[in-house]
Amino acid sequence: MPNSDQAICLHGPSWLAGWLSNHADSYPHSEERMQLAIELSAINVAEGTGGPFGAVVVDMRSGRLISAGVNRVVACCASVAHAEIMAMTAAQQKLGCFDLSASTSIASDTPVFGLYSSCEPCAMCFGAIPWSGIRHLGCAARDGDARAIGFDEGPKMTTWRSQLEKRSITVETDLCRADAVGVLQDYAKEQGIIYNGRHAIEQ
Amino acid sequence: MPNSDQAICLHGPSWLAGWLSNHADSYPHSEERMQLAIELSAINVAEGTGGPFGAVVVDMRSGRLISAGVNRVVACCASVAHAEIMAMTAAQQKLGCFDLSASTSIASDTPVFGLYSSCEPCAMCFGAIPWSGIRHLGCAARDGDARAIGFDEGPKMTTWRSQLEKRSITVETDLCRADAVGVLQDYAKEQGIIYNGRHAIEQ
Repeated sequence: MPNSDQAICLHGPSWLAGWLSNHADSYPHSEERMQLAIELSAINVAEGTGGPFGAVVVDMRSGRLISAGVNRVVACCASVAHAEIMAMTAAQQKLGCFDLSASTSIASDTPVFGLYSSCEPCAMCFGAIPWSGIRHLGCAARDGDARAIGFDEGPKMTTWRSQLEKRSITVETDLCRADAVGVLQDYAKEQGIIYNGRHAIEQ
Repeated sequence: MPNSDQAICLHGPSWLAGWLSNHADSYPHSEERMQLAIELSAINVAEGTGGPFGAVVVDMRSGRLISAGVNRVVACCASVAHAEIMAMTAAQQKLGCFDLSASTSIASDTPVFGLYSSCEPCAMCFGAIPWSGIRHLGCAARDGDARAIGFDEGPKMTTWRSQLEKRSITVETDLCRADAVGVLQDYAKEQGIIYNGRHAIEQ
């Protein structure tokens, strides 16, 4: 029998609600926002609740934290549950709109919602970003840093950055990169699960 | 306050459980499998429960239907809720594994789980397929058919098909294409929502 309950549930780890209740009113600087994403990735590794990736969505005008996500692929039995997808979807469901850019119709060119991720996007998350309505992407570790510990980042355009910029999504890279790479390396040292699709890397 | 309840819910439409309870034991042929995906897309339009896209995951050996998905972007406030993502994630959660290829370690080259989608994948779903463990992709409408009614398919590699094949994912295109295009055109005629990220298409 196929699944008759068609509700797909992607749940965050139990510590995340506590983490979310304990934060500042505003994070004005890129580095502070990125440190939140990296902190999430580090806690996810320390608590054994998922892969070494974290992400936050922030209101770019107020600096307010909107949502947070960590990698939950293994725990949720869902290859889609990357930190970026978790954070972007949580923001959309919180704000009640599938398109986070829908509130940018004010007379301003300032991006409204930014995604700060502890690592550059994989092929899937790269494709998901334009649909989300995110207007700014900040990245810490490079995709090559994730590949260096065994993660397959997928068939991603080498021009990914300019492809996003062409769609009015600004991109900042190498934000606090060393800190994010430290978390990746800790995960590798502790032999964390490298949850690639098994056949995806048999090329 | 950020969301303290970190459960992301992507729910299927209410008619889907009934649809799933009324099917054959086996769908041996590609065309039959694709007709299921196209039927889902048509019901989704007729019921007003989402965009004109449907997908199923099928066990390639037995022909058994494993899961089904339809587009739920607007209803779920989630730009990730494309039919392919819904079907692949439902299959993973049903089978209890983030990697649908994990059960292919039998001495056989036959792909085990196939995804049949009423349209070629967008940039996000293309990137998601290698992570899912899907070993075969069947498509009906072309991505150009979706673009023709206003959907933005995103920054997708022109070599998407060979990229999947390099990762041992076989690809069949133009399966029952005319039927799927008919559903897309009905949706356009009825002025269904074209739920691109608003700024994604302002190039």
